[in-house]
Amino acid sequence: MLNLQLIKEAAARIAPHIHRTPVMTSHKFNEASGKQVYFKCENLQRAGAFKARGATNKIRSLSDDEKRRGVIAVSSGNHAQAVALAAREANVRAVVAIPADAPKMKVEATRAYGADIRFFDRQRDDRDAFGREIAEREGLVMVPAYDDYLIMAGQGTCGLEFLQEVPDLDCVLTPCSGGGLFAGVSTAARALNSEIQCFAVEPETANDTQLSLAKGDRVTIPPSPTIADGLRVQSPGALTFPITQQNARAVLTVSDIEIAETMRFMLFRLKMLVEPSGATAAAAVLCKKLPADLKRVGVVLSGGNVDPDVLADLLQQGENEQ
Amino acid sequence: MLNLQLIKEAAARIAPHIHRTPVMTSHKFNEASGKQVYFKCENLQRAGAFKARGATNKIRSLSDDEKRRGVIAVSSGNHAQAVALAAREANVRAVVAIPADAPKMKVEATRAYGADIRFFDRQRDDRDAFGREIAEREGLVMVPAYDDYLIMAGQGTCGLEFLQEVPDLDCVLTPCSGGGLFAGVSTAARALNSEIQCFAVEPETANDTQLSLAKGDRVTIPPSPTIADGLRVQSPGALTFPITQQNARAVLTVSDIEIAETMRFMLFRLKMLVEPSGATAAAAVLCKKLPADLKRVGVVLSGGNVDPDVLADLLQQGENEQ
Repeated sequence: MLNLQLIKEAAARIAPHIHRTPVMTSHKFNEASGKQVYFKCENLQRAGAFKARGATNKIRSLSDDEKRRGVIAVSSGNHAQAVALAAREANVRAVVAIPADAPKMKVEATRAYGADIRFFDRQRDDRDAFGREIAEREGLVMVPAYDDYLIMAGQGTCGLEFLQEVPDLDCVLTPCSGGGLFAGVSTAARALNSEIQCFAVEPETANDTQLSLAKGDRVTIPPSPTIADGLRVQSPGALTFPITQQNARAVLTVSDIEIAETMRFMLFRLKMLVEPSGATAAAAVLCKKLPADLKRVGVVLSGGNVDPDVLADLLQQGENEQ
Repeated sequence: MLNLQLIKEAAARIAPHIHRTPVMTSHKFNEASGKQVYFKCENLQRAGAFKARGATNKIRSLSDDEKRRGVIAVSSGNHAQAVALAAREANVRAVVAIPADAPKMKVEATRAYGADIRFFDRQRDDRDAFGREIAEREGLVMVPAYDDYLIMAGQGTCGLEFLQEVPDLDCVLTPCSGGGLFAGVSTAARALNSEIQCFAVEPETANDTQLSLAKGDRVTIPPSPTIADGLRVQSPGALTFPITQQNARAVLTVSDIEIAETMRFMLFRLKMLVEPSGATAAAAVLCKKLPADLKRVGVVLSGGNVDPDVLADLLQQGENEQ
């Protein structure tokens, strides 16, 4: 079960291995949004995203026998890099299954952390089956991307730090994909501040959690083309969803244009690179999706891993809009 | 005269109006450079550069009569925005003389801070005479970009904060244009740590300070085409140069290619936008221009104001090199 105790244990376990990321504020963002906004900068986290927290907590919690066997993760994105980094630092062997068409830069970053890369075909192979088969054949322990209490507790340490530093927030917003970050952060936040309202934010074309909450049951949506490549999961997790149901005041959605506009704002005004997925919660605030009575707003900037060509397209798009 | 006392007075005077910017570190930068590097993040300063420190100190030091008259600055860059911001917050009228061909974005930012903009022709007009004439006609007080002890003391507060936070640096590096930042930071650093070695860094095509130190006298160089648009000053200041002579262990130079490579490293690895001028000191470290015996290195990232088209060119250039 996920609770404050599990999150506090995670915090103690991972503290030597991750950054306590800074909380930043910006006059310009406050002026533009009409709120008092605090940013938890997980784009400055090790390996460039909050994922280092959960992966480190999971891997550091393994038994000695499991550590000797090694771990496996299936991911083309930030979870891949996080598992590779956390495993290397714990002297644990890591295999990472990655789609063959994943961005070269992310593959190289994962390889640079020492992981053993296995490619699968996104169209032909079932990614979960592909990972499970390697795990069984090679005796590896699976490190899930979100549907695991130790992963969620690790991500929750981000919320714990955030509320320790800024206790009196009216609300907190996180991007939402499988739901691990939202589950962890909202659990920590509500434990430390019973009045706080928690919002999950999704791209409007990848709103599986929003639809699932409306239905009261997990919905699976078709693949989304959103630029928020980290939020393309098609349904909430089995373990994360009940926590989201309990903790979410609402799910807000943002368009790709709003995400891109927010990324440019963060880059040129706040001087920070935030990836599309990482900018969705900020986009919801900048584009005024929050109720007017919520003034003191916590935003998790969840990651900063952007491919140069994606960023170049985004700048081009900004020029065209002027 | 510039000394620690003047810098401490500046620090007390400007504290309510500027950011105490964070000091950051990066495993990746340390690995790539072979040093233990601390970054003083003035790209996160108000108005996007250290210039807010000096301008605020100067304007807050004016007599009541001078404040009633208002101020003028001549600049197309960060000094313009800094003076406009500092004046607005002190309820002082600001006129800023800007070349007619300055980047629209910087003009708009300066105007957004409430300054009265006057355009001059970079080819036809003498910029200093243009500014002096307006100052005399309208009774305004000139806020120099660097050649003024209150400006230098303001910039020195950056060094004061840096050494307070990381006292045991072997060396500190700053970008160098007119010399105000280097004079201020090196004076503070040497007062707090008598062993520290101070390096000024210039683009190799804008090495007026390097040439001046070699000659023992201020040299004027032709206009430089460097991408470091904030470092195109053609000679060191009359007041800053003697301080640079006394404090600089050496002037290091970096090429535009090294600056661009460093900007991309800072952006994609450290997730921070640093402008070309602001990245020169980091470039000197990344490109291994420092003596081997200096291990604990302080780097001032002096600003983060980059035009989107300049950044787009830089990404394009990075793609072509791969």
